[in-house]
Amino acid sequence: MGVAVRNIARADSAVVEALGQLGVATIHEAQGRTGLLAPRIRPIYGGAHIAGTAVTVSVPPADNWMIHVAIELCREGDVLVVAPTSTSDAGYFGELLAVSLRARGVQGLVIDAGCRDVAELKAMSFPVWSKCICAQGTVKETLGNANVPVVCAGQLVAPGDVIVADDDGVVVVERDSAATVLSQSQAREEKESRIRERYSKGELGLDMNDMRPLLAEKGLSYVDDAD
Amino acid sequence: MGVAVRNIARADSAVVEALGQLGVATIHEAQGRTGLLAPRIRPIYGGAHIAGTAVTVSVPPADNWMIHVAIELCREGDVLVVAPTSTSDAGYFGELLAVSLRARGVQGLVIDAGCRDVAELKAMSFPVWSKCICAQGTVKETLGNANVPVVCAGQLVAPGDVIVADDDGVVVVERDSAATVLSQSQAREEKESRIRERYSKGELGLDMNDMRPLLAEKGLSYVDDAD
Amino acid sequence: MGVAVRNIARADSAVVEALGQLGVATIHEAQGRTGLLAPRIRPIYGGAHIAGTAVTVSVPPADNWMIHVAIELCREGDVLVVAPTSTSDAGYFGELLAVSLRARGVQGLVIDAGCRDVAELKAMSFPVWSKCICAQGTVKETLGNANVPVVCAGQLVAPGDVIVADDDGVVVVERDSAATVLSQSQAREEKESRIRERYSKGELGLDMNDMRPLLAEKGLSYVDDAD
Amino acid sequence: MGVAVRNIARADSAVVEALGQLGVATIHEAQGRTGLLAPRIRPIYGGAHIAGTAVTVSVPPADNWMIHVAIELCREGDVLVVAPTSTSDAGYFGELLAVSLRARGVQGLVIDAGCRDVAELKAMSFPVWSKCICAQGTVKETLGNANVPVVCAGQLVAPGDVIVADDDGVVVVERDSAATVLSQSQAREEKESRIRERYSKGELGLDMNDMRPLLAEKGLSYVDDAD
Amino acid sequence: MGVAVRNIARADSAVVEALGQLGVATIHEAQGRTGLLAPRIRPIYGGAHIAGTAVTVSVPPADNWMIHVAIELCREGDVLVVAPTSTSDAGYFGELLAVSLRARGVQGLVIDAGCRDVAELKAMSFPVWSKCICAQGTVKETLGNANVPVVCAGQLVAPGDVIVADDDGVVVVERDSAATVLSQSQAREEKESRIRERYSKGELGLDMNDMRPLLAEKGLSYVDDAD
Amino acid sequence: MGVAVRNIARADSAVVEALGQLGVATIHEAQGRTGLLAPRIRPIYGGAHIAGTAVTVSVPPADNWMIHVAIELCREGDVLVVAPTSTSDAGYFGELLAVSLRARGVQGLVIDAGCRDVAELKAMSFPVWSKCICAQGTVKETLGNANVPVVCAGQLVAPGDVIVADDDGVVVVERDSAATVLSQSQAREEKESRIRERYSKGELGLDMNDMRPLLAEKGLSYVDDAD
Repeated sequence: MGVAVRNIARADSAVVEALGQLGVATIHEAQGRTGLLAPRIRPIYGGAHIAGTAVTVSVPPADNWMIHVAIELCREGDVLVVAPTSTSDAGYFGELLAVSLRARGVQGLVIDAGCRDVAELKAMSFPVWSKCICAQGTVKETLGNANVPVVCAGQLVAPGDVIVADDDGVVVVERDSAATVLSQSQAREEKESRIRERYSKGELGLDMNDMRPLLAEKGLSYVDDAD
Repeated sequence: MGVAVRNIARADSAVVEALGQLGVATIHEAQGRTGLLAPRIRPIYGGAHIAGTAVTVSVPPADNWMIHVAIELCREGDVLVVAPTSTSDAGYFGELLAVSLRARGVQGLVIDAGCRDVAELKAMSFPVWSKCICAQGTVKETLGNANVPVVCAGQLVAPGDVIVADDDGVVVVERDSAATVLSQSQAREEKESRIRERYSKGELGLDMNDMRPLLAEKGLSYVDDAD
Repeated sequence: MGVAVRNIARADSAVVEALGQLGVATIHEAQGRTGLLAPRIRPIYGGAHIAGTAVTVSVPPADNWMIHVAIELCREGDVLVVAPTSTSDAGYFGELLAVSLRARGVQGLVIDAGCRDVAELKAMSFPVWSKCICAQGTVKETLGNANVPVVCAGQLVAPGDVIVADDDGVVVVERDSAATVLSQSQAREEKESRIRERYSKGELGLDMNDMRPLLAEKGLSYVDDAD
Repeated sequence: MGVAVRNIARADSAVVEALGQLGVATIHEAQGRTGLLAPRIRPIYGGAHIAGTAVTVSVPPADNWMIHVAIELCREGDVLVVAPTSTSDAGYFGELLAVSLRARGVQGLVIDAGCRDVAELKAMSFPVWSKCICAQGTVKETLGNANVPVVCAGQLVAPGDVIVADDDGVVVVERDSAATVLSQSQAREEKESRIRERYSKGELGLDMNDMRPLLAEKGLSYVDDAD
Repeated sequence: MGVAVRNIARADSAVVEALGQLGVATIHEAQGRTGLLAPRIRPIYGGAHIAGTAVTVSVPPADNWMIHVAIELCREGDVLVVAPTSTSDAGYFGELLAVSLRARGVQGLVIDAGCRDVAELKAMSFPVWSKCICAQGTVKETLGNANVPVVCAGQLVAPGDVIVADDDGVVVVERDSAATVLSQSQAREEKESRIRERYSKGELGLDMNDMRPLLAEKGLSYVDDAD
Repeated sequence: MGVAVRNIARADSAVVEALGQLGVATIHEAQGRTGLLAPRIRPIYGGAHIAGTAVTVSVPPADNWMIHVAIELCREGDVLVVAPTSTSDAGYFGELLAVSLRARGVQGLVIDAGCRDVAELKAMSFPVWSKCICAQGTVKETLGNANVPVVCAGQLVAPGDVIVADDDGVVVVERDSAATVLSQSQAREEKESRIRERYSKGELGLDMNDMRPLLAEKGLSYVDDAD
């Protein structure tokens, strides 16, 4: 009726750090357009960009007791991922818990529910990605689970997976795939860098990717002027 | 078919000012988790934090005529609270009305509908909390009521009540409870200050609040490793 | 099953530029409260304000192939307007396409779907107004149409129409009405300037517009105090 | 931290019963377009039409303990009105509680949250108006209040007020106004009956209400054909 | 500031009637997946299926005056299409107006806003497709336009166009394309009839459409068992 | 880039059938309030109640090609579970595919996207639980995966898991837990049966569960009358 797993295998920290140099959109593309949390999850302030290993926690509606349990399980470089068992807008998380997480070296928080104290969180540069901002508090009465696989904003997140979050949203990379996804993402980044160079000089995607024959084959017709 | 009340009893200005030093989340907690407007009400720009006494106005859909009536009823230190009688996204309020409100010393505006001219409002630092941003204008054809109790974003607001608004949202404090809520909020703030200090040093909520026995009693089991 | 129109008549560039000096709310009012895109269309960062001539493109769900086709049709001063044929949150547009559009002198993009790479777009000051932010990518497999009339966020946009976008949203002005709407908007702006002056001195809308007799006629009653 | 009021003054039962012969839209119009709960509140099955006196209960998020407290306060002819203190989709109410309410003669339930067991509720003809249908259960751990004024779906409901609900939604009538609203509603119904008769014979609202001069005065122009 | 067009060219009534024998999904497919109103537009009761020629009306927020103007413009076989100029949930339309429309032989109503009196409308079998059900009434104070092109739920509807509506939603067919779309729809229906026959006997789409080679070419791999 | 698993282990058919005699709410409670799909998933018509083993398919936005692949993988007693990789309202599924599924003995369909042909589906009694109803069609151009674990409406569904769906929504039961959940659900059902009996005779939950001392301990105070 409530389980907390103490030891979890975490993705390699060098890989995590390297993934953190890359954008969410790039990583999501590189791993085959998978792992993106639903777009309702937004940063509470702009400009943050983090990567870390997931410590997961499932919480009852409007009850943040298990977050306290989960904090103890966190260590340097983690990201706390909070998944309510039922839809809730309540503000499970605020500045005090952020102070506690920071003391343990946690990078940030992802929650499919509400967050509060956003001015204070911004001032202390503790980034949160949440479904909404809501001052409504929570209670501490019912158990959930910590460090078990959870579904957060439509994606399965296992403890120790990599979480990368930036202004575009949040992506999860499976622990065992992290190194592969990293190299695929870096390859994609390099390729994009070459495309960027050519685009900036005025070359067209139509020509660079030889799209014209395929467009014609699909039936695209150009007309000089609308009737 | 339309009433405007000229004189209202307002919460004590010293209490209002002191409440303005505290955050919405703190006040909401301190008064027993009540009085919070629905989280759809968001600031049009970040960083504003106000407190004032409510002048209320109920308005017909997409008709802002009564706001003109309400402006005359405002005085130094008020916050105008606008509640449409039917769901509307229209932009009832913009920069010109803000100039008029500012001339009377009004602190800001709360509206369960749309706001426009947000660039200008930000430039003049006139804060608004609204349901949406929408350039769609309104007409001036139908009456509503001013300075009567209204329900705004799910909360009852009476004229003269205290409105506090910040990046977390908007909370209403009943006029007669304002002094009590203030002292409860300040007590909470002090308590949080002590917690913050201990959290920042790495102490855990689990220990500080002696949660471990209760968690065990509820049935939480720790396992060292997943399966 | 896919048409791209090469040459379109565009609104006069001097008129477009002058409209760009005016706000969306002003223009929307001046043309009789028409042409405003639905308020779900929001800027991805604050403070941008553009005007340009529409190059339009209808796109299949989660397929951005036609945007490549449309880019070639763009020239200095255009705004690309993207309308999916079915509701989609996917991120059709990101930084690379923005680099390509900028190389052609395009002012910005309006899309009734998702946008990604928002940090990069902000850094390069390429403004986008979109329905959401979503890192989810798209494919390049199905045709749509370019430079035909489209309905974007509830408004009909024809190629060559004027698009003005700022923090309040996006408004479309028909190409043939652009000059008329410009002069109406400028007249409105001047009138608002005079109103602003008087409001700032404390005059009331009630008096300036002689509203009191009409309010009384409609049945507004003033009471000195609530019961 | 939790209050339950045993005895409340209820609206006159004859008036309540008579109001139950009238539709929600009629009553809402007759009392000056006030008292309508937000349209998110919908019947779980079509065709039900009830009227009763409100027993109110405010409940914590996803916690239905106070509903048990409120049931004891109900008597023949009541309608239970449930208002969560924070947005929730959880299923607070199902068939078993309906059996308990029916045993006390309660007419139905209105809740700004979720309901479950809808097949069973339909089979036993116990009508519920709710925000959503959701099988997610609730706990019994935290107090709320019973028979105090609550805001439910945007409307203030006091214990003893009249609740009328049908396929159009839910309206609240203040206890002290019930008799007046009844006669106004009946007058409106009679007037509508006469209008119905004339409309069915082909008369136009334009003529029956002499709207043509006013439309012309406002500036309506008729043209025979579009250009 | 308000125009009503008396005479409009209507699609051929035999074509309209024949289109009414076909489903919305079929017609929408047959005309190249265009013309479908947004899925927020839903029937107020199940099982209705109509086709008619559009009489259009744009209405101000929560003001149904122009519907009275539009009724006079309707004749046997029309469908009234109502498009508010700004988002609104208000109940613009109810039973009395339905009686008036029925007296003129109107088939039904499509509205991108609220409808009320749904029990009565169902009882008299007057079908309505609306955005929501809401008892909130409207006023009669501001002009709009009748029989001009409007955008309703994201689609351009011109007066005289064909509207077909059933349990799947609402589709508009341009007047000049109606005959062509009819024959395309009938051809599609016949084709679907043959597919239905084969599917019901257990044939697979994979085989009937020879999809297997193409799936293989795209890279689909079959595995006998998950790892 | 596209995988289809031919053979999957399915939950025991006798257990599945027995679970189908129980309601979604009961099963969800019995398995510890887990496994419930988000409440946006609703039946397209009332009264259906099914249980079956999941065949899963992930589909690209607005592309239903993989459903054809999945149909071949279905057999008697399955339920097809469709999870788009990105939010979509498109109508992936209609009557023809239902005919094909029925020919294979499939019980019904669950989809976190749109469904169409709802009148025909109701007529043939093929139940669907979907996010919305939308006539918008899809293409057949991009691969997905069949019979791999998917996240559908916020819940992890593995091939062979049990799906139970009724008017309250959809719940997934893990294949390996099915027998245990069945016996827990039956025990719960029996317990509820006894409660129902006592409630119907007028006993109160307060007394049956001995709640009064605990309520008092938590601080509930009864007052005879509101002041």
